[in-house]
Amino acid sequence: MGKIICAGLGPGDPDLMSLRAARAVQGAAYIAYFRKAGRPGQARRIVQGLLAPGCVEYAMEYPVTTELPADSPEYIAALHEFYEDWAARLEVLAQDRDIVVLCEGDPFFYGSFMHLHVRLQGKVEIEVIPGITGMSGCWTATGTPITWGNDILTILPGTLPQAELARRMGESDAFVVMKTGRNLPKIRAALAQAGRLEQAVLVAHGTSAQQRIARVAEMKEEDCPYFAIVLAHGGRNRA
Amino acid sequence: MGKIICAGLGPGDPDLMSLRAARAVQGAAYIAYFRKAGRPGQARRIVQGLLAPGCVEYAMEYPVTTELPADSPEYIAALHEFYEDWAARLEVLAQDRDIVVLCEGDPFFYGSFMHLHVRLQGKVEIEVIPGITGMSGCWTATGTPITWGNDILTILPGTLPQAELARRMGESDAFVVMKTGRNLPKIRAALAQAGRLEQAVLVAHGTSAQQRIARVAEMKEEDCPYFAIVLAHGGRNRA
Repeated sequence: MGKIICAGLGPGDPDLMSLRAARAVQGAAYIAYFRKAGRPGQARRIVQGLLAPGCVEYAMEYPVTTELPADSPEYIAALHEFYEDWAARLEVLAQDRDIVVLCEGDPFFYGSFMHLHVRLQGKVEIEVIPGITGMSGCWTATGTPITWGNDILTILPGTLPQAELARRMGESDAFVVMKTGRNLPKIRAALAQAGRLEQAVLVAHGTSAQQRIARVAEMKEEDCPYFAIVLAHGGRNRA
Repeated sequence: MGKIICAGLGPGDPDLMSLRAARAVQGAAYIAYFRKAGRPGQARRIVQGLLAPGCVEYAMEYPVTTELPADSPEYIAALHEFYEDWAARLEVLAQDRDIVVLCEGDPFFYGSFMHLHVRLQGKVEIEVIPGITGMSGCWTATGTPITWGNDILTILPGTLPQAELARRMGESDAFVVMKTGRNLPKIRAALAQAGRLEQAVLVAHGTSAQQRIARVAEMKEEDCPYFAIVLAHGGRNRA
């Protein structure tokens, strides 16, 4: 019997992978990773140059990404079938081999792996190696601590309605907004409503060579890359 | 000119240190770390066996920890002097050598290093290496993802008043309560008030040999170790 090892790869810089994840990747005879069809994929890019010769790769290509609204029945059905299919294939493969599933960031923190995990749990042995989250990479890149002693930190999906975003931003010492992309105009409006616009920072591609840090107040709407978060630092309570 | 390198060591298992942090630790000629007087210290324990022969160690021992209330003027004054003193010493040392400051977890996420960082910023070169947070180690240990797609995750200090804890627990898909320790009875009452007690899990010493996972509802009050968090998993919104 083999097992599924999900290796959290961290925020982007391969040097920020854990010792255990690096060993799993370097020793893998079989790997699998999600990607958009026709793209190299962020997880695969992080391990470039680390794979053993002859390592067999399974690229799990999303049937849709941004072509359909994520809450449409077509999108949900397509993704459901996709995860079911790959879970079934990995279950068969894991009967007689170990497979390392690559996952950027930390697998159990908003990671796509959980859609496989929930389907494979109890059927095959699964090991999850935690990773440095993308947001940790981003706040470290700003050169300022995200939270001090008694701060409340809220992690918000950018998909929330504006009023809800604004209320929660206003009630938190520090916050991180995930899934910015097309939601940036709404996020910016919520920041202004909450009185936090001047303080808010956007970090794109944190820790990678394309890293970019900008004040949200100074950004153009069309200028928001997909792998970006918005954050506001805490520390107002600090001793 | 030398520099200060703050190495995030991750949640406890040395194998979960990043490649970059491991290299910094193994190559260090000078290290510094916080600890309670008379104890080995959690950060120092993580690097046991990794230090180069002859590495010089500066143990920065807290003048007080739990003997005084953290909001008392005496506590605040003692800590202030302590951080001022060590910042001044590290500034002098860093004039002609690199010093690796060890930090469990992720330095910019509720880490003590920020008290040195705020005093040394602009005076000496500082590099911060992010780490896997203690909470990531803990939720990975539970074997269940902490957050799915559009979940809101709130990080709460256990020092908040009970009503405030309960309100925020009730409004979050997933949450993590830091600084449990003596606050456990209050946290448990808040969980019950928010209708989340049955779901809540305490994880102590996540990823270390002493790791322990228990349902909060089944725990005895006197049984709560210091290095513990309470968490509730999200996923109610999952597709």
